[in-house]
Amino acid sequence: MQYTSAVVRDETAGIRVDNALKLWYIRSVSGGCTEGILVVPVVSVVGSSNVGKTTFLERLVRELKSRGYRVGTIKHYKHEFEIDQPGKDSWRHFRAGSDVTVISSPRKMALVQRLEAELPLDRIVSKMETVDLVITEGYKHADKPKIEVFRKEQTDHLVCGPDELLALVTDQAFELPVPQYDLDDVQGVADLIEQRYILQAAT
Amino acid sequence: MQYTSAVVRDETAGIRVDNALKLWYIRSVSGGCTEGILVVPVVSVVGSSNVGKTTFLERLVRELKSRGYRVGTIKHYKHEFEIDQPGKDSWRHFRAGSDVTVISSPRKMALVQRLEAELPLDRIVSKMETVDLVITEGYKHADKPKIEVFRKEQTDHLVCGPDELLALVTDQAFELPVPQYDLDDVQGVADLIEQRYILQAAT
Repeated sequence: MQYTSAVVRDETAGIRVDNALKLWYIRSVSGGCTEGILVVPVVSVVGSSNVGKTTFLERLVRELKSRGYRVGTIKHYKHEFEIDQPGKDSWRHFRAGSDVTVISSPRKMALVQRLEAELPLDRIVSKMETVDLVITEGYKHADKPKIEVFRKEQTDHLVCGPDELLALVTDQAFELPVPQYDLDDVQGVADLIEQRYILQAAT
Repeated sequence: MQYTSAVVRDETAGIRVDNALKLWYIRSVSGGCTEGILVVPVVSVVGSSNVGKTTFLERLVRELKSRGYRVGTIKHYKHEFEIDQPGKDSWRHFRAGSDVTVISSPRKMALVQRLEAELPLDRIVSKMETVDLVITEGYKHADKPKIEVFRKEQTDHLVCGPDELLALVTDQAFELPVPQYDLDDVQGVADLIEQRYILQAAT
């Protein structure tokens, strides 16, 4: 339960963490209480089209899973997407107009929800239960640390400024004060994420 | 915000409802606080195989939506199900091993989560934001009011006892102390649900 450490500090009267709801509650000695939302680190994989963002993210997920972490991922679409399979009962529920449809089974749960406006990234993260880290694909305009993937045969410029970048994953060196990794160096990037965001949160 | 009424009562120092998290917080005059989860009514559509549960549920959702309610639905699978479309980025994220994958767009959000054990129905309901009612397909063993769909050409017996039943939707009359509706009488069933669970919660 590494996320509690930041909020325990000098409160002594009691802290309760509800992992299911991702909330913490502190009850102080005076009897008042405070509640808040657990903070999960979020890192975004960004870059131009076709540089290999999804491929890199897949390999990063595999590497972090092999190190024992629970990992969430988010894919951002600017336009609509389809999910579920036409004709299935859950597909029929949603098509009939339900605002949110859940499919529940022993090993997997899926939820599809209609929205009036896109959910902010932090709201989405708050729905992802008991993960140690969230990696997004896209969200280059969000205020999260970013790993930009660059391949010179696909583009001639970076989409992020150096101040936003946690790292570059690239087949070309840049004269920038940003850690740079080869396209294949998933271990290196995982080490960086682990040191900066996961282990640090646990101390 | 009909769900708050039950918890306001004689507390005066302050109540806050977080619709996003479906939580309420009461702070009493003495400075203590209590928190709880909003209660959303749940009704289950059950019955033997091929009696027309999904078709009835689709029509019921359409009817309740036409009355202005926000409706959630849950489909229960005893075994595995597949969702998402092979080759899509989100499908690749999940296949790479992510514990939970979200797809976010301006008008829709989808979440797919790996589980070690099936989620209890009430936990699932707690994830369904700002709906007035949840209708499940299946869950005949859960402790929720049930509407059994019966068609004599498909089965010769009911799957629920009369004590569990809110209503029967049937093409054959039963000598039971349970409200009975024709297979087409979606309005009648919607009236019953509205009176018993939605309007009642609002008073």
